[in-house]
Amino acid sequence: MASTRNLFFPFLFISIFPLLSIASYSPLDPLTPSELNQVHAIVKNSVNTNDNLSFHYVGLDEPDKSAVQSWLLNGDASRIPSRKASVVVRYDGRTHELMVDLSTNSILSNELYNGYGYPMLTGEEQTAANELPMRYQPYVAAIKKRGLKLEEVVCLTMTIGWYGENETSRLVKVNSYYMDGTMNLYMRPIEGITVTVDLDQMKIVGFRDRLIVPVPKAKGTEYRLSQLPLRSNLEVNLRQPNEQRIDIDGNIVRWANWEFHLSFDMRAGAMLSLASYYDPEKEERRQVFYQAHVSELFVPYMDMTEEWYYRTFFDSGEFGAGLCTSSLVPLRDCPENAVYRDGYFVWEDGSLGTTPNAICIFERNAGDVLWRHTETALEGGMPTEAVPETSLVVRTVLTLSNYDYIVDWEFKLPGTIKVTTGLTGMLEVRGTEYTHADQIHEEVYGTMLAENTLGAFHDHFLNFYVDLDIDGEANSFVKNKLTTKRVKGNSSKRKSYWTVVSETVKTESDARIRLGTGESELLIVNTNKKTKVGNPVGYRLVPGSNVGPLLSDDDYPQIRGAFSKYNVWVTPYNKTERFAGGKYVDQSHGENTLAVWTLRNREIENKDIVLWYTLGFHHVPHQEDFPIMPTLTGGFELRPASFFEHNPLLNAKSTSEAK
Amino acid sequence: MASTRNLFFPFLFISIFPLLSIASYSPLDPLTPSELNQVHAIVKNSVNTNDNLSFHYVGLDEPDKSAVQSWLLNGDASRIPSRKASVVVRYDGRTHELMVDLSTNSILSNELYNGYGYPMLTGEEQTAANELPMRYQPYVAAIKKRGLKLEEVVCLTMTIGWYGENETSRLVKVNSYYMDGTMNLYMRPIEGITVTVDLDQMKIVGFRDRLIVPVPKAKGTEYRLSQLPLRSNLEVNLRQPNEQRIDIDGNIVRWANWEFHLSFDMRAGAMLSLASYYDPEKEERRQVFYQAHVSELFVPYMDMTEEWYYRTFFDSGEFGAGLCTSSLVPLRDCPENAVYRDGYFVWEDGSLGTTPNAICIFERNAGDVLWRHTETALEGGMPTEAVPETSLVVRTVLTLSNYDYIVDWEFKLPGTIKVTTGLTGMLEVRGTEYTHADQIHEEVYGTMLAENTLGAFHDHFLNFYVDLDIDGEANSFVKNKLTTKRVKGNSSKRKSYWTVVSETVKTESDARIRLGTGESELLIVNTNKKTKVGNPVGYRLVPGSNVGPLLSDDDYPQIRGAFSKYNVWVTPYNKTERFAGGKYVDQSHGENTLAVWTLRNREIENKDIVLWYTLGFHHVPHQEDFPIMPTLTGGFELRPASFFEHNPLLNAKSTSEAK
Repeated sequence: MASTRNLFFPFLFISIFPLLSIASYSPLDPLTPSELNQVHAIVKNSVNTNDNLSFHYVGLDEPDKSAVQSWLLNGDASRIPSRKASVVVRYDGRTHELMVDLSTNSILSNELYNGYGYPMLTGEEQTAANELPMRYQPYVAAIKKRGLKLEEVVCLTMTIGWYGENETSRLVKVNSYYMDGTMNLYMRPIEGITVTVDLDQMKIVGFRDRLIVPVPKAKGTEYRLSQLPLRSNLEVNLRQPNEQRIDIDGNIVRWANWEFHLSFDMRAGAMLSLASYYDPEKEERRQVFYQAHVSELFVPYMDMTEEWYYRTFFDSGEFGAGLCTSSLVPLRDCPENAVYRDGYFVWEDGSLGTTPNAICIFERNAGDVLWRHTETALEGGMPTEAVPETSLVVRTVLTLSNYDYIVDWEFKLPGTIKVTTGLTGMLEVRGTEYTHADQIHEEVYGTMLAENTLGAFHDHFLNFYVDLDIDGEANSFVKNKLTTKRVKGNSSKRKSYWTVVSETVKTESDARIRLGTGESELLIVNTNKKTKVGNPVGYRLVPGSNVGPLLSDDDYPQIRGAFSKYNVWVTPYNKTERFAGGKYVDQSHGENTLAVWTLRNREIENKDIVLWYTLGFHHVPHQEDFPIMPTLTGGFELRPASFFEHNPLLNAKSTSEAK
Repeated sequence: MASTRNLFFPFLFISIFPLLSIASYSPLDPLTPSELNQVHAIVKNSVNTNDNLSFHYVGLDEPDKSAVQSWLLNGDASRIPSRKASVVVRYDGRTHELMVDLSTNSILSNELYNGYGYPMLTGEEQTAANELPMRYQPYVAAIKKRGLKLEEVVCLTMTIGWYGENETSRLVKVNSYYMDGTMNLYMRPIEGITVTVDLDQMKIVGFRDRLIVPVPKAKGTEYRLSQLPLRSNLEVNLRQPNEQRIDIDGNIVRWANWEFHLSFDMRAGAMLSLASYYDPEKEERRQVFYQAHVSELFVPYMDMTEEWYYRTFFDSGEFGAGLCTSSLVPLRDCPENAVYRDGYFVWEDGSLGTTPNAICIFERNAGDVLWRHTETALEGGMPTEAVPETSLVVRTVLTLSNYDYIVDWEFKLPGTIKVTTGLTGMLEVRGTEYTHADQIHEEVYGTMLAENTLGAFHDHFLNFYVDLDIDGEANSFVKNKLTTKRVKGNSSKRKSYWTVVSETVKTESDARIRLGTGESELLIVNTNKKTKVGNPVGYRLVPGSNVGPLLSDDDYPQIRGAFSKYNVWVTPYNKTERFAGGKYVDQSHGENTLAVWTLRNREIENKDIVLWYTLGFHHVPHQEDFPIMPTLTGGFELRPASFFEHNPLLNAKSTSEAK
């Protein structure tokens, strides 16, 4: 079934790589527009099919970590690994994984994927599916029956998940929303009609009109500032007078002591790699992480009605965090001092697509204080030492239909990396006959938000992949358990205290942690590197507020989204394990996911290990979330923990008073 | 024992209150400099003692809440309650509580305080105690024996706590630090010498020189930027080009839809009162909280050695959050657009003291997004709607010897109040003979930070008092328990979901909550006020990361700091219950604290209730915290939860497309 053909296309750009300086080239650079065009041509000309050939993913096939590390160490252009692309296409009703060699213009392999699950949906097939109902008579009749205008109806494609059946078709459900006086269609769901579409056949294979409920009114759903009375409070000027200090060289970003590689992938979105910090005391650049990105977003709704039960989205795997990355608006999404990077992807037909301003990078000057001290013990006093904080933010926004996720990777001067996610956009609401909470005497699975409008209960679980390489690959995961001790006898007037009982975690199963139930400091350390006073160098995970799942373990969406069961997971590095919910997520059965991989219970002590952090939110909607949600944020920090000999911004060597 | 004398002093300023407009005067205004001088004169002239009269507290005796509310409602100058001062003085070796009437220049009452515990220490008595050892021969000999220079020694007063004894003297311990080449004395403790001082007698009553350990070196302890090589990374320009939009009228602060009263108290520090939000839909100002401030800071160390076990500080009650408020440095502690307020207090002799720039207030423009949405469902598209966020921050910094706490009260446009605490300054370190972690084979109660330097394990528990009055005084505390349900039979293909089981808490004992163990949304609601669709108006507590105590319940410091046992407490409003650790905290026995008050298990449903939030940090020091700590933050939010009919920044009435 698999076909492999070597083809040669004399593209001009093939020869340009050796001309680039090493500084501006990295083997982790995302495929350039030229390379994406090249892949398109190679695949189109080599795949033998009379069927539609649809592209679901094209991205860099990253060289092995060892090759990248070797390139990093030697900085030798002759050692640059050849450029390869990883491609997922569908034709003949099957999913194919292709490996394309750009240096030889050849397809190295073409493997049929036979497992469960389907690749990311393309935008085009969603658009096509959304148009089908408009020409489908039972649907047109259903709209008419409700007294609605067909031209004001907007359809949206939803993935169907998996509920134990052995479905062999790529199906979606198409749901209906109403405009007619608002641009905020999400607040005007048309309930009761379910249209099932087979994406490969691109035809309606199921239709059901179960019940009629009132469509919520347009009134009160407006959110465009231009349509609202001038609200001077909202006129924020994000001018930032600081000169630009962000140095961008190819895909390498340098700022203060930090350096990292920034790329974009149509599945993962923004990807940060090869992050290192220049240690002024050691006078060397020290590795912190190899790669980091959003790995999955799992959003299960808690409404058991026929039209809602299946809404358990895996936004990254089903729709693509990269594909869903929004263009950022200068001075609205990011302040004036931001610089922007475009993102590239391929359309369904394999041609090049661009997301302008997909990523912004800016210095954040929030009025915070990096450190301070007022000395009160000395007579006559001494001036307060206070240092205002500035940090570097890398921001993307993922828009998944109604929801917008703002994902910030923030690099701080003292070596801390802070990840913040903001949830905004629109709720997914259900139409209802009720206009007042007092009328409700049945389970409605949500909160009354406005007349005829219920905000459905739901969760958000974002998983972040962070391949930490603290001063090298061989790292260990340590639980510093804070343990209460009783004072023995009369050795102290105190009766108790706590101390640190340190445990180096041996295998994956002991590294699964649900936060909030224990009292542990969690660290990733390199036991092979010690500070002068003998502490292993490391980073500490500082969790923010977090929650775990409330679904039963045996429930289908929870099987697929089992990575949400623990907030922290640690695995040995494995190139194929990148996405906590698996690679082929649409209609997946959850058999190739983080939770399953860790069942092997591999050793993780003094190995190249990966930290997976799941950030959870339970969302009980309140009326303020209607018709657009003020941002709610959560996140975590990775903070140096005896990684440096001391506060790294104070260079001890230079103090004149040193004794 | 108590003496009450009425005296009249014809001060000019007595007549000025009626001349002030109501807008710029509030019955909660802190005592003015003139009033503080007036109190000083009244007390000095009326208290009959040959002993030293020392002032430990002077502050406004707030009118009853009902009087303030009545004034607020009627805005009638004739109803302004008379100004009274609450005064705590010591003379004849006893603590006296005085009530001073400023309108009649009289002392209304003078009560002897007979309970356990002593008032806040004055700065002067700490300074005096710190000077005693320098003239005490055994101490001088001990310094000499260590080969140290007496003129480079700095002493610091520490409170001694309570360990079951029935101590009737006001004692402190005085500990020793060394300069000689550094300004960072905290990094150079002189271990082994304990000096006990009786503060009332102001003499040394105990001396012990138990052991000699090396004093950590000065090298590497410098933190003054002027003494460090120019680090351009740290040169942050906090210029903010926005025009100033903060309206300050007397002690009333108005910004965007928010209005609140801001005052300063030598015990509580910054106090925020009468906070309300102008609801543009209801076209009225709606109450959110009556009063809020830091109530206590409990900082127990975990070192059981003779010189350390007692270090279990109650920073607010023992040293005064107001007395320890540092002057803020423009462009370092706060950005350019900040406005500043001075704070007033009294010195030990009762005379007026000023803390310039005790509070700053500024618009925060951090580059965050208030809300956003990119509409992808519509062909042709529509512009992204994104609104940059600006908020108002009220900041103070409390410096407790080595530690600096940055306390921010942030008012957000959509009605949210966010409280953030930053921990910075210096660690409390212990000198040790060890120079490398490998040498340690005994319990050392801390982390090796540098040669001869151990960073002691410790906690920080900050308690915040928030008297919420959501749309009025009668509020209720609601636990929305997110509860997993199994799907019955075949009613859905799903097996489980969660729903909200709402419980209105009846009494105090059920309102004590340790976060992280349950899955509940916590709300304060006003069940007497409903939104149009029938939800009780309310606010939601959104906790940040938090921890609880690890000390045993029966341990003395934990008895005194029992408010740390739960992160959330709710009590009925009681004018006398303001400080979670009690009013007289120095050497207290913990018998008059939040944990004891709630044992009465009073009713809290549909009452005037107070929320107490304990924010905890376990601090395992790491080398980056040496010699000065990069700020570590924590906090919580109070977020409107169906307090408004919808997102309050969108005025539905004005939408042209409203149907």
